Amino acid sequence: MTFDPDLLPDGGMLWLDASGPEGNIVLSTRVRLARNLAGRRFTIRAEPADCDTVLAEVERASRASQQLRDAPVIRLQDMDLIERQLLHERRLVSRELAGLEGEGDRGVRPGSALLTDGVVGVMVNEEDHVRLQCLKSGFALDEAYADLERLDAELGKELAFSFHEEFGYLTSCPTNTGTGLRASVLIHLPGLVLTKEIAKVLRGLSQVGLTFRGLYGEGSEVVGNFFQLSNQTTLGKSEEDLLDHLGDMVRKVIEYEEQARHILQRDAPNVIADKVWRAYGLLRYARSLSFEETMNLLSGVRLGVGLNLISDVSVYTLNKLLIFTQPAHLAWRAKKGLDDPDLPMMRASYTRQLLEAEVAR
Amino acid sequence: MTFDPDLLPDGGMLWLDASGPEGNIVLSTRVRLARNLAGRRFTIRAEPADCDTVLAEVERASRASQQLRDAPVIRLQDMDLIERQLLHERRLVSRELAGLEGEGDRGVRPGSALLTDGVVGVMVNEEDHVRLQCLKSGFALDEAYADLERLDAELGKELAFSFHEEFGYLTSCPTNTGTGLRASVLIHLPGLVLTKEIAKVLRGLSQVGLTFRGLYGEGSEVVGNFFQLSNQTTLGKSEEDLLDHLGDMVRKVIEYEEQARHILQRDAPNVIADKVWRAYGLLRYARSLSFEETMNLLSGVRLGVGLNLISDVSVYTLNKLLIFTQPAHLAWRAKKGLDDPDLPMMRASYTRQLLEAEVAR
Repeated sequence: MTFDPDLLPDGGMLWLDASGPEGNIVLSTRVRLARNLAGRRFTIRAEPADCDTVLAEVERASRASQQLRDAPVIRLQDMDLIERQLLHERRLVSRELAGLEGEGDRGVRPGSALLTDGVVGVMVNEEDHVRLQCLKSGFALDEAYADLERLDAELGKELAFSFHEEFGYLTSCPTNTGTGLRASVLIHLPGLVLTKEIAKVLRGLSQVGLTFRGLYGEGSEVVGNFFQLSNQTTLGKSEEDLLDHLGDMVRKVIEYEEQARHILQRDAPNVIADKVWRAYGLLRYARSLSFEETMNLLSGVRLGVGLNLISDVSVYTLNKLLIFTQPAHLAWRAKKGLDDPDLPMMRASYTRQLLEAEVAR
Repeated sequence: MTFDPDLLPDGGMLWLDASGPEGNIVLSTRVRLARNLAGRRFTIRAEPADCDTVLAEVERASRASQQLRDAPVIRLQDMDLIERQLLHERRLVSRELAGLEGEGDRGVRPGSALLTDGVVGVMVNEEDHVRLQCLKSGFALDEAYADLERLDAELGKELAFSFHEEFGYLTSCPTNTGTGLRASVLIHLPGLVLTKEIAKVLRGLSQVGLTFRGLYGEGSEVVGNFFQLSNQTTLGKSEEDLLDHLGDMVRKVIEYEEQARHILQRDAPNVIADKVWRAYGLLRYARSLSFEETMNLLSGVRLGVGLNLISDVSVYTLNKLLIFTQPAHLAWRAKKGLDDPDLPMMRASYTRQLLEAEVAR
């Protein structure tokens, strides 16, 4: 089978439309729940046959649910490297599930699969048997969790999840034990970076049990001033406490970011205008762009849009560029390899095309 | 009197239209002849009254000539600093005549004046009493000299030039004695700079008695890959020999430049396309531009036009931007000082305006 990445509604990324709250500063909210099937070995120790059984079980349960009744089962084993990386670039599967952990392509575990309707989804045979996830536009922790809770309850009717009276949900890695919940918010903080306040803010977050990462989760570097803020621990707290705490902190960060932007606009309006328009000019006309430069330029333009300096680009297009200019997206589109030397040219060409279409709109 | 810089046809810069031979690589050709009136002290030793007499004499002679019959007499003494610098930025008067030599504004000599019809002109009371000059579009040494020779003959009928049987025309500085001729070609050599061949070429030129300077003649730095190539000595050679020699060498440099561009296009077409389009993108959208950056970006775009990569800008507009984005031009237009902190913003705004008009054309 050749996987069709456009099988999913909006490529599996309904959050791109920037329709959610604070959609300009907060790109998306993600919540996931880790679950394992009682009486079965954790994925990491399982035989291939066990994994297949887990997938069959989850598929059966999904069919009985409201949300995933019609969701296609995307089996990662049938997919080549570019297709799996493409799903990862869309933030629909983890590096682990896509078999991208460590050096190069180590292949995927049997029974690795994704079921999703474009908002909620299930990764099967990841580090845990089941990882329920929800990805929403903007700052929407409660809404994302509500969707997920419903799915969790529905699947829980069909599947016996491994649960311990004292510890809560049992997971492959102890850091997830308890609620199995991890929530994260992808947030754009150019104001705090430009005013050099960012280190202080991140330090403050780590003191209250939150952590930050780059666009691609654990271990990924921060580029383009895009930060993923998330809770660090899950044991000993209720889901509501975890979400409330993260929500309060993110609200504060949004406030700091807005203050920083206000200060920049007040004290250095010309420098800022020059910066954001130069970013736009380069994206509009460059013939070769690295992904990192693209992220940085998109960050500049997004700031310009946020400050009402640039009006001929939508946040939707900026979100789309962030995802579709990644290596696997470009390589897949052009039917080339991930190491093709022309990728930077394709990236520039794709970017120009989208920005020109915006102006013509 | 407030000087009107647009008094002259096309601001005194008919060469801007890029209509001359090799107009894409060679911006302009300039030839000048140094002359002094016999029996009068050189300007540098003259009393103010002497200078006034010299001006009156030259004005009378000009009125009797075909070319300068109707030329306005632009007296530099009546002009403020910005206006004089503006004339210098237009390459119509030397730093010396504009009183800009050395630190700050040392004021101008009495009787300092310019008469020009937009192609040929006379500087009066410069280092020499009379400096005839001709500025033509493109690579046009013979044409420029022909115009100048005619003017020289016409003025020579009315004025007794200081001439020595053995040495030729006598001049204030011995380096000009002989023909009094200096010819220079303003040439754009990005190909030789990018292929790192430029040092070799310039070394070769100095070995055959030629020298190079930046856009503003003696002592000015090279920016934006614009070089003025000129003859170094004038004594002991005929005008024709000097011009032929310079012409032969410039023709070779043009050939080297074309070879370099060909190599760049063959070996690194993507790098070049990216470079020239980025330059265009920044000029189109930046909100603040230093003059030096502007020159460098204009150089990039000019290369792009020369290689037929960029078609929506004319060389005329690029020439115009080169002149009109200079400090005095911007300050004069906005009625601001030369040290106004907003000049970089005005430069960016003016540049955008011209480039947008080109696209709308």
